[in-house]
Amino acid sequence: MPYFDAASSLPPHPVAREALLAALDDGWADPGRLHRAGRRARMLLDAARETAAEAVGCRPDELTFTSSGTRALHTGIVGALAGRARAGRHLLVSAVEHSAVLHAADVHRNAGGTVAEIGVDRAGRVAPDDVAAALAAGPGPAALVCVQSANHEVGTRQPVVEIAEVCRAAGVPLLVDAAQSLPWEPVGGDWSVLTGSAHKWGGPGGVGLLVVRKGVRFAPPGPVDERESGRAPGFENIPAIVAAAASLRAVRQEAAAEAARLRELVDRIRARVPELVPDVEVVGDQEHRLPGIVTFSCLYVDGEALLHALDRGGFAVSSGSSCTSSTLTPSHVLRAMGVLSEGNVRVSLPPGTPAEEVERFLAVLPGTVAAVRDQLSPPPPVTVPAADGDALTVDSLGKLCPVPVIELARAIGQVRVGGVITVLSDDTAARLDIPAWCAMRGHEYLGESPVDVGPGTAYRVRRSA
Amino acid sequence: MPYFDAASSLPPHPVAREALLAALDDGWADPGRLHRAGRRARMLLDAARETAAEAVGCRPDELTFTSSGTRALHTGIVGALAGRARAGRHLLVSAVEHSAVLHAADVHRNAGGTVAEIGVDRAGRVAPDDVAAALAAGPGPAALVCVQSANHEVGTRQPVVEIAEVCRAAGVPLLVDAAQSLPWEPVGGDWSVLTGSAHKWGGPGGVGLLVVRKGVRFAPPGPVDERESGRAPGFENIPAIVAAAASLRAVRQEAAAEAARLRELVDRIRARVPELVPDVEVVGDQEHRLPGIVTFSCLYVDGEALLHALDRGGFAVSSGSSCTSSTLTPSHVLRAMGVLSEGNVRVSLPPGTPAEEVERFLAVLPGTVAAVRDQLSPPPPVTVPAADGDALTVDSLGKLCPVPVIELARAIGQVRVGGVITVLSDDTAARLDIPAWCAMRGHEYLGESPVDVGPGTAYRVRRSA
Repeated sequence: MPYFDAASSLPPHPVAREALLAALDDGWADPGRLHRAGRRARMLLDAARETAAEAVGCRPDELTFTSSGTRALHTGIVGALAGRARAGRHLLVSAVEHSAVLHAADVHRNAGGTVAEIGVDRAGRVAPDDVAAALAAGPGPAALVCVQSANHEVGTRQPVVEIAEVCRAAGVPLLVDAAQSLPWEPVGGDWSVLTGSAHKWGGPGGVGLLVVRKGVRFAPPGPVDERESGRAPGFENIPAIVAAAASLRAVRQEAAAEAARLRELVDRIRARVPELVPDVEVVGDQEHRLPGIVTFSCLYVDGEALLHALDRGGFAVSSGSSCTSSTLTPSHVLRAMGVLSEGNVRVSLPPGTPAEEVERFLAVLPGTVAAVRDQLSPPPPVTVPAADGDALTVDSLGKLCPVPVIELARAIGQVRVGGVITVLSDDTAARLDIPAWCAMRGHEYLGESPVDVGPGTAYRVRRSA
Repeated sequence: MPYFDAASSLPPHPVAREALLAALDDGWADPGRLHRAGRRARMLLDAARETAAEAVGCRPDELTFTSSGTRALHTGIVGALAGRARAGRHLLVSAVEHSAVLHAADVHRNAGGTVAEIGVDRAGRVAPDDVAAALAAGPGPAALVCVQSANHEVGTRQPVVEIAEVCRAAGVPLLVDAAQSLPWEPVGGDWSVLTGSAHKWGGPGGVGLLVVRKGVRFAPPGPVDERESGRAPGFENIPAIVAAAASLRAVRQEAAAEAARLRELVDRIRARVPELVPDVEVVGDQEHRLPGIVTFSCLYVDGEALLHALDRGGFAVSSGSSCTSSTLTPSHVLRAMGVLSEGNVRVSLPPGTPAEEVERFLAVLPGTVAAVRDQLSPPPPVTVPAADGDALTVDSLGKLCPVPVIELARAIGQVRVGGVITVLSDDTAARLDIPAWCAMRGHEYLGESPVDVGPGTAYRVRRSA
């Protein structure tokens, strides 16, 4: 069954599997012990650190193995903030960071720190000038800036080298979450802290990377011990670490050729999906993007239903952010980009994906979307025409995404060109999807206001054609 | 090469290896995903949780997999303290807890909380009455009590059931670090929080257990996500978790028979070592102890040198606590017990240790200790006789353990019975080892006082025979 959810997790690379097996025999002892078994474990750990550091482009003593990429982010952010506590308590994060960054930012805010989000354009890209402006805006001097190297939901790459220059000029450290790009290449530029996650490149679960450049002030949070430079307490999982380092080296050897190949496959999806499926928006940066990720959203479709239908059809994809797939709120990444969230599908191709699988996906997708759209036929919307026939109110209160947009689409024909539709909705996705629908269909979005009584929002749309 | 450091880490159990391999194929995907690969991973995770919960004796929804036993302790302690923040900020820990507990206690103290240590007897055992007294002593109501089920350095088991009753009567939760005993049996009694570590039972590294009983107030520290009930953020290492659960079940099936066998081997070491090696003290509780651990200390021997000599002789053992082996301070466990720390050796037999290996160890040990003792022949001590010939001062300032005790032993013959030796030492082990030496050799320890000028302590000993 084609697995197109590589950005979430990859099956173990053959090299990871081999290295893991080999290291099970020699890497189980405590590397802090002075006996032979301990020394053997220590040697494996040291060698893995050398290998990983070479792939990252750092000194081995700058690199710590953590128990996950999430843990690396939490420790990296809290540690860098604590190291800069005297300089200030203001944290800057891009609005499209991984939820682990946003969770760490929440903790910082709850502890009395301040946090500002740096916005992105419709392609999901952070502008270096916006970073400079946010650094200048305060309140007070910033302690840390967090910008990912590439986005996990839409694949957009960030201009990390330029952003690092801006941060360096301001004397503020930059933390780069490199989870998605590290399998492809080192992160350039003068960053201060960097994180990664092994299962994103075909390494085992349970291994993250935290790199803190020499000279960066850093105070690890919480209880620590003598392991991993005091930055990752607890017994090291050496077989998994060895497998992580070996597989990173292996995927890097294949990276350039595989990136070119996947990029072509993704180009094909980006071009064909809008031709094959009506009312689709492909999102993310056309040029600055990861090789294997493409994300699109389909009007009048429930993303989770489409995901289940594709799963039944033999394709494993994801919808929106991994961290919001089980919630009712739209992905914070799509929200920050201001693009359609309904019917959202992320296709992320693992290295080695055959072109035929992509063709088969393109063959299956149109019928699957159509079937999901057919299933979702809510009763006709409850509409209240205004006296002059030029305005109509659609009551979608209590209805979940994508129903409000479907009801809007059905009702628009009931007013004449120039007339105004007001949609009442208490679903959070409507705030994103109604303006996105207007942009896609060429109608004019007039804005929102609270409903007169009870919770909910009134969204106003002027029919343009 | 015989590996007698099981209490530190065990080689993977065959069942762990098999389960790990099998789960590599099915357990790599994100269990939070809705596609087939994700559901397969989720099923493996759920099954592992059922298995582990059965072995612990808890409900599956009370059990969280963490990235290490250390992480389980840190999260367990901080989470339980935060859950009880309204009741109080006073933490009670036994003086012989694992360093991970003491590190978490340090963090609590630095954050403004109070911590009290509950002492142990010479065998390393906590008395339930002492827990009751500590609970009554305050300051203020206690928020949490931490007592391990059995000690990692000397093998002494704690009366957890009775201690749990004392805590329950006081309305204070009890956290039990069960890392050393969990491979052998569930922890009885009405505890509130329990932790374990898979590599202690032959599971892989990177897996700890954190069990929080229903109804216990608990607030996990730091940034969390939706994984593992919000108690262990970051991508789950499912193959390792599956291997951990499967191997726990497997070792439990062999536990009763293997415990009886190892206990006999340890009985033999406990009996023979004092007969074979002069000036040895076997420490730890004679009766209430783990099956496979025995610890003894040898006068006039540097523990690290003995460990290296045994390693060259083919035996992997450890000396003192894993967390102090690279430092110059004696193990906090031996210090709390008030027993000799010099020349300390912990022998911890893995399941399956053949009796012949133990016999071979007993054959090699006496010569190895003798050789290490011979190597360590410091120049004659600098002594200053008093005018009346009844008192002598030994200046051991600037000399490391075990030299001060060796110099004391050499000098004792220079005063007549009833005479007093004063040893000046600035080595921290002397505070423990000089009184222990007096108890072993039958001399009277008179006490200590600061030296007149500079750092260091004067220890006074009366010759008794």
